[in-house]
Amino acid sequence: MPENESGRPFAQRWLDAAKQKGGPVCVGLDPVLERLPAAVRDGNKAVGSIETFCLGVIEAVAPFVPAVKPQLACFERYGSEGLAVYERVVDAAHAAGLLVIADAKRGDIGVSASHYAAAFLEGPHAADALTVSPYLGPDTLEPFIESAVKNSAAVFVLVCTSNPRSGTWQGLPTNDGRRVVEHVADFVESMSKKHAGAEAYGPVGAVVGATHPDEAAALRQRMPHVLFLVPGFGAQGGGVEDVLPCFREDGTGAVVTASRSVLYPEPVEGETWRDAVARAARELRDHVAGAALPSAG
Amino acid sequence: MPENESGRPFAQRWLDAAKQKGGPVCVGLDPVLERLPAAVRDGNKAVGSIETFCLGVIEAVAPFVPAVKPQLACFERYGSEGLAVYERVVDAAHAAGLLVIADAKRGDIGVSASHYAAAFLEGPHAADALTVSPYLGPDTLEPFIESAVKNSAAVFVLVCTSNPRSGTWQGLPTNDGRRVVEHVADFVESMSKKHAGAEAYGPVGAVVGATHPDEAAALRQRMPHVLFLVPGFGAQGGGVEDVLPCFREDGTGAVVTASRSVLYPEPVEGETWRDAVARAARELRDHVAGAALPSAG
Repeated sequence: MPENESGRPFAQRWLDAAKQKGGPVCVGLDPVLERLPAAVRDGNKAVGSIETFCLGVIEAVAPFVPAVKPQLACFERYGSEGLAVYERVVDAAHAAGLLVIADAKRGDIGVSASHYAAAFLEGPHAADALTVSPYLGPDTLEPFIESAVKNSAAVFVLVCTSNPRSGTWQGLPTNDGRRVVEHVADFVESMSKKHAGAEAYGPVGAVVGATHPDEAAALRQRMPHVLFLVPGFGAQGGGVEDVLPCFREDGTGAVVTASRSVLYPEPVEGETWRDAVARAARELRDHVAGAALPSAG
Repeated sequence: MPENESGRPFAQRWLDAAKQKGGPVCVGLDPVLERLPAAVRDGNKAVGSIETFCLGVIEAVAPFVPAVKPQLACFERYGSEGLAVYERVVDAAHAAGLLVIADAKRGDIGVSASHYAAAFLEGPHAADALTVSPYLGPDTLEPFIESAVKNSAAVFVLVCTSNPRSGTWQGLPTNDGRRVVEHVADFVESMSKKHAGAEAYGPVGAVVGATHPDEAAALRQRMPHVLFLVPGFGAQGGGVEDVLPCFREDGTGAVVTASRSVLYPEPVEGETWRDAVARAARELRDHVAGAALPSAG
């Protein structure tokens, strides 16, 4: 984790990196075998193809984006061999100067939560941030937050997800006037503020899908000390106008993430698949930065 | 997965196995390095100790219990090497005739959910059942349920967990009179009933902690077609009277799970650690069977 030798908190490292690369964007590493370029799949077995593809994507996008977000399901799909690929992908991303957000959506109780935190935020292949799921309750998030604080990392708690029926339970109105999503959001804000000190953002972030712009605006007000991880941009239907409410007025506060639209672009004539991925990453950055960050460019 | 060559649904295999072993119990495989017997740790590195311990536990408990429940956090704690140990533990448990419930509490959207289902319910090291987390919404549980149906496996959805502050969000009363936990429970019942056919239980189970007996009684009424996975027995404070409400009147319907009380018993004079684990597993079975299943013994 070379970026973190200084022990600077994740949010500060993120803000610096976004400024340096010119845009607050992140590329999701969600490799799906059937969609990989033929040049990658030929003669390789599945896990080998996934690794070759991810390492190529990292090299292609590193000049244009501050972070990547490996989707653990895509690696764990291939068991322990797949998880070994994930570990090498983390190392390669760090070597390329990228921040790594492990999209694992873990959640468990007591010592098991501590084990998951150690798995993803500590040790030789530690990521810089981890997504976690809140259903079990606030006490089950605390071991993750403690580990994040100790390791100058971050956790992004699922608050308002990007899937079509995310509102079924997240959106339930409760008897104190808040919806479930707002209960979780209030906990996230309180914990992030508590650990933020004098900084703008603390170590507890929120996953807020790009597919719910009205919700995002209200959640932005509700969680001023919280970085938003914003999936759903691009292929899932979220556009640049949909992610704007996730930013604060100073143009910071959101990590806009695209996966399929960057991983699987249609190559134009003369482009290799890596050229196409690099172009898609640059376009993602310019698109988001141009709209969201006129003052921070 | 030798038990499943016939393609019989998980619930039927579970009921048969519980009858054959004489009790509806399950041993949680939550190996924590610091707690392992000195004889296991000596001269071994961490992952090696975990593997030696789990293989010894499987051999010791197999005569007395129908199932084991590996806690993925304890394996993933050691990265890809740890996940390789998990895979060998699954294979060893199957070779010993045990059902395997992978306690991974996974949850994700769309194709990622399908990937996690494939990781745990398909392929050479497939478990027989998987725990999943509902926060993202019902559409994110459906790929897991589809995989369970296709593979004659089961998914256990987190409904009412055993941790101290599980009620903070699970227990929120919503404006239609149901609490969050009841919304999730109603979905679980509807999906399990739909796929149960003429059988008593369908492929969608519920995690209901032994630490909430009043809640369990109401949830049992609410989910008649649902097998309960009941953690929290023993070390977490749940006693035999606390798990009784998880059973239906016919004495079936619950998978009572104990971890620490079976894994780390105090050996009596002359016992090896394996003898002590075997004794603790037998006592767990007799304790639960004697109270819960007087008619099914």
